[in-house]
Amino acid sequence: MHRLKLFIPGPTEVAQEVLEAMARPPIGHRTPEAKELILTVSGQVREMLRTRQTVLLSTSSATGLMEAAIRNLVRRKVLCTSCGAFGKRWYEIALANGKEAELVHFPEGKPVDPEVIDRKLAQGGFEAVTFVHNETSTGVISPLEAMAEVVRHHPDVLLLVDAVTSMGAVPIAFDELGLDVCLASVQKALALPPGFAICVVSDRALERAAKVDARGYYFDFLEMARRAAEGQTPITPSLPHLFGLRVQLQRILTEGMEARYQRHLRMARLVQDWARQRLALFAEESSLSPTVTAVDTMGRFPPRELIQYARQHGFLVASGYGPLKDRTFRIAHMGELQEADLKELLQCLESFLSSRS
Amino acid sequence: MHRLKLFIPGPTEVAQEVLEAMARPPIGHRTPEAKELILTVSGQVREMLRTRQTVLLSTSSATGLMEAAIRNLVRRKVLCTSCGAFGKRWYEIALANGKEAELVHFPEGKPVDPEVIDRKLAQGGFEAVTFVHNETSTGVISPLEAMAEVVRHHPDVLLLVDAVTSMGAVPIAFDELGLDVCLASVQKALALPPGFAICVVSDRALERAAKVDARGYYFDFLEMARRAAEGQTPITPSLPHLFGLRVQLQRILTEGMEARYQRHLRMARLVQDWARQRLALFAEESSLSPTVTAVDTMGRFPPRELIQYARQHGFLVASGYGPLKDRTFRIAHMGELQEADLKELLQCLESFLSSRS
Repeated sequence: MHRLKLFIPGPTEVAQEVLEAMARPPIGHRTPEAKELILTVSGQVREMLRTRQTVLLSTSSATGLMEAAIRNLVRRKVLCTSCGAFGKRWYEIALANGKEAELVHFPEGKPVDPEVIDRKLAQGGFEAVTFVHNETSTGVISPLEAMAEVVRHHPDVLLLVDAVTSMGAVPIAFDELGLDVCLASVQKALALPPGFAICVVSDRALERAAKVDARGYYFDFLEMARRAAEGQTPITPSLPHLFGLRVQLQRILTEGMEARYQRHLRMARLVQDWARQRLALFAEESSLSPTVTAVDTMGRFPPRELIQYARQHGFLVASGYGPLKDRTFRIAHMGELQEADLKELLQCLESFLSSRS
Repeated sequence: MHRLKLFIPGPTEVAQEVLEAMARPPIGHRTPEAKELILTVSGQVREMLRTRQTVLLSTSSATGLMEAAIRNLVRRKVLCTSCGAFGKRWYEIALANGKEAELVHFPEGKPVDPEVIDRKLAQGGFEAVTFVHNETSTGVISPLEAMAEVVRHHPDVLLLVDAVTSMGAVPIAFDELGLDVCLASVQKALALPPGFAICVVSDRALERAAKVDARGYYFDFLEMARRAAEGQTPITPSLPHLFGLRVQLQRILTEGMEARYQRHLRMARLVQDWARQRLALFAEESSLSPTVTAVDTMGRFPPRELIQYARQHGFLVASGYGPLKDRTFRIAHMGELQEADLKELLQCLESFLSSRS
């Protein structure tokens, strides 16, 4: 069977050059060559996220780093903001680790409202606030800059940002915004195969970690940061992903961050225009995600029929997430995809709609 | 520069066929194809370890699964056995997770003595005991069968086995021995690039996990087991490693487990004979590891000079571990290596010794 082209919110398409880099034979992970590899990749991440702070490279998915952020930076209580499934995941993680957590949930399709969070934080007692930059389950982007500004007014509160489906596709200026953790898996807009995650951690977050007990072992930020400064990782890292990252981050920086952001906006607009014209957008207009669009079928057909049709024509699009499964389907437009790819997909979806009218 | 051939205790050499499998473009991780991949790999692991119990596939190193075993299976107190650095790691992990732990440490070069552990367990209060099958830091294999028998006499105690450098090279009959956890990274005797780990978990371990609070999220055994039964993983797995594992485990089963064990013994004997003749073995004779040999230089030269010489000739051998750095060097003989590879290496080390006499 011919491979399906991926229009799902991860894994996404990967450049052949990157796949080939991942097939390099392993090297000793304590050699000078490995050190250079780790330092190069860390430097590339720093450039992409406009930061001078610490880059941690994690052999895990981003979910592992979300848990790491909670265990390392929250002693007692965290405020979790949410406008969909991935916002709630932070909350579940906090509870699964024996922390107190409060969830502020905004209706699906709407973004997180920083003003509401500001009032909540003013009540005191929170050591950190979690924030999903781009909520993949509903196709909503929440206002990172406004959120960062709000959190800056609460000096003891750390801001932990899930940038899983925005990193590399949407501008994030880590130092300028004063973020504390910004994490992502590599199989989304960064366009590598899954199995690895990266994050930036601020100095003040590392100072906080030093005061937290039972941080655990595998995801101990202090140990990871100590080794990162030496161009090492505490445990043997996924060398294939590091080989791939070095090539892919260079490709990203060569494309240019600004050009990359614009390409994602153009791809998003293409899909949004089509959805608006033929069906409807699930997310509210002012918060449409640049990387994934949730299309509301308006009850005109079961989304699985469209997904099945697309699959028969070589395209993999995503079902709606959880409770939205029977009402929406999702098209991701990120990473390696180009406008031409989206046009090809939309043409296919167009024939599906015609076949039903 | 020409790539160094790896004679270190991981990462080890990888077959070209496996590297190529890892370079396959990603697929959707919730597709029927991904499900078949996960079920196939799990079945292969079951066959290799002679078990019908649950296989968990983890996007992490084995250290992550060690932490998982502690968090999922120990409420209060664990007994950690050790005869080297990796035995101690279990102990450090237990403490880093806020558990009580007692460490029984045997002198470097000697194995864990099950009779001593038997007496210790008889004192009561331990929910689990940790055991490193093959201690890479000293080149010692400890008696798994005897240890399993001892632990069976203490019905409430779970046996957690680090088989990081023995799995795939030394016989392990999980069900017959009544093990509870048996884990490994893939970059050792299984001969894949690093970045993934596997383990088998017994039913009674899963029953225990159900009674343990704050198991965490990323490494929650119950959720991993629940999804494993469906041919899924809770989070997006490292697809490159799964593609590679399917090919490599088939290669391992095709070679035949018994043939594979014999090959490892022959390679080990080759290195041991040479070391005995020219220098000395660090481990005691009755516990020599089939996968890695620590050679005692007897103070005749700084080990780093031999390592440097080997590197100049294209071979990467390992330094002694931690405090043994100035006294030993280590040769790994596992995974894809063949006797001919070892002969080639030993010839090089022979010229080093000649050049110094």
